[in-house]
Amino acid sequence: MERNIRLTIEYEGTAYAGWQIQENAVSVQQIIEEAVYSVTGEKSRLTGSGRTDSGVHARGQVANFFTHSKIPADRMGYALNASLPADIRIVEAQEADLTFHARYHAKKKEYRYTLHMGPHGTALDRRTCVHVRGPLDMEAVGEATKHLCGTHDFAAFMGAGSSVKTTVRTIYRAEWTEGKDKLYFTIVGNGFLYNMVRIIVGTLIDVGRKKRRPEDMAHLLAPASRDDAGPTAPAKGLCLMKVYY
Amino acid sequence: MERNIRLTIEYEGTAYAGWQIQENAVSVQQIIEEAVYSVTGEKSRLTGSGRTDSGVHARGQVANFFTHSKIPADRMGYALNASLPADIRIVEAQEADLTFHARYHAKKKEYRYTLHMGPHGTALDRRTCVHVRGPLDMEAVGEATKHLCGTHDFAAFMGAGSSVKTTVRTIYRAEWTEGKDKLYFTIVGNGFLYNMVRIIVGTLIDVGRKKRRPEDMAHLLAPASRDDAGPTAPAKGLCLMKVYY
Repeated sequence: MERNIRLTIEYEGTAYAGWQIQENAVSVQQIIEEAVYSVTGEKSRLTGSGRTDSGVHARGQVANFFTHSKIPADRMGYALNASLPADIRIVEAQEADLTFHARYHAKKKEYRYTLHMGPHGTALDRRTCVHVRGPLDMEAVGEATKHLCGTHDFAAFMGAGSSVKTTVRTIYRAEWTEGKDKLYFTIVGNGFLYNMVRIIVGTLIDVGRKKRRPEDMAHLLAPASRDDAGPTAPAKGLCLMKVYY
Repeated sequence: MERNIRLTIEYEGTAYAGWQIQENAVSVQQIIEEAVYSVTGEKSRLTGSGRTDSGVHARGQVANFFTHSKIPADRMGYALNASLPADIRIVEAQEADLTFHARYHAKKKEYRYTLHMGPHGTALDRRTCVHVRGPLDMEAVGEATKHLCGTHDFAAFMGAGSSVKTTVRTIYRAEWTEGKDKLYFTIVGNGFLYNMVRIIVGTLIDVGRKKRRPEDMAHLLAPASRDDAGPTAPAKGLCLMKVYY
């Protein structure tokens, strides 16, 4: 009997060329498919909720695969973790309806971007934070961030080399929170263009450094072109936190 | 003119054989002394507040060294970081009184031990947490933890191969706090014996797993011998957070 297994996956992206399988580079998807093969003996294709770029992390990536294996879903998690490297962990494995599709059924995604502020970098969190020599004008950043919510054309925030039917996306939540010497940017949307969160963060950092005014964000959503927006912030600060279904 | 520079240091201990210089192994102290040499041209000896074991991390280790260099203290931090590897960061460099001694003048130290709870481990925090398959009876653990505060003979909590004048230490604070799928044990004391925090944590985990009763902690401070206490928890969960002067 065919079954559909839904996985929630955490990974440190440092060592990988992103989520998606590709030639001549090691991807998270490939490593998990190999683990599935070693556990079930079947060459199953893993469907992720979407790609993450090279070096981007995840705490809540979701993927599904079909199998004829009789291993109960919760045991499947343990079995997969036993053959996965330490930088990829199955957080949860569940039995899913046969119609469940990790990409098509994803309704919202939540990303978090982490900045480490202060004069020097951080040793312990260096793989998951981007060091920004402060200070940033967080009042201006907060004002610029407000413009993101709602349905807009994010063409200015799409990295080169991507083709999509539409660059319109809806953002449900975008906010900054502060931790000890860290700043966290959380964004929830119905979908994200290639490099979109990283370009948004790069642009907001420009606002924080007073290189741009908060209102620029509204103009960039007019829409505008990629050249009008700020730089693409580094991959390692980004983490896919949650996929909503 | 001789100057005394006080450093606050963060490091990920994973790659090091601990703080203290030793033959045939790379220590944090050695790497920083080499950085001081490359910045000042002087072979200065670095005095740490105390050792940390192989694999133990620090967010607030303190050390001092003497130099004739004319580099201002704040620039010294940047210069040292430029020659240090990414897993060691100078968080602060300050001018100190010539009488300041990082070890002799340390009054209190704060350590934190981090457990990751839940069925599976963590990919992103695997270097700084120890995975414990729950659940732990945290009410019992909290009760056992209360016995630690005050002045006691911690002989039962000293690792083999250490010789000290006295095994009596004073604990000012010992408490557990909860984060998302994490448990943090914070302990502040006037000094710690070899492996002391790790043996305390190993013993408290035994209590949480109902292998011991909370009152055992009082008996272990009667005092008792090392064999009476629990196992030594792994190094990677431990972090020296702060040294008080």
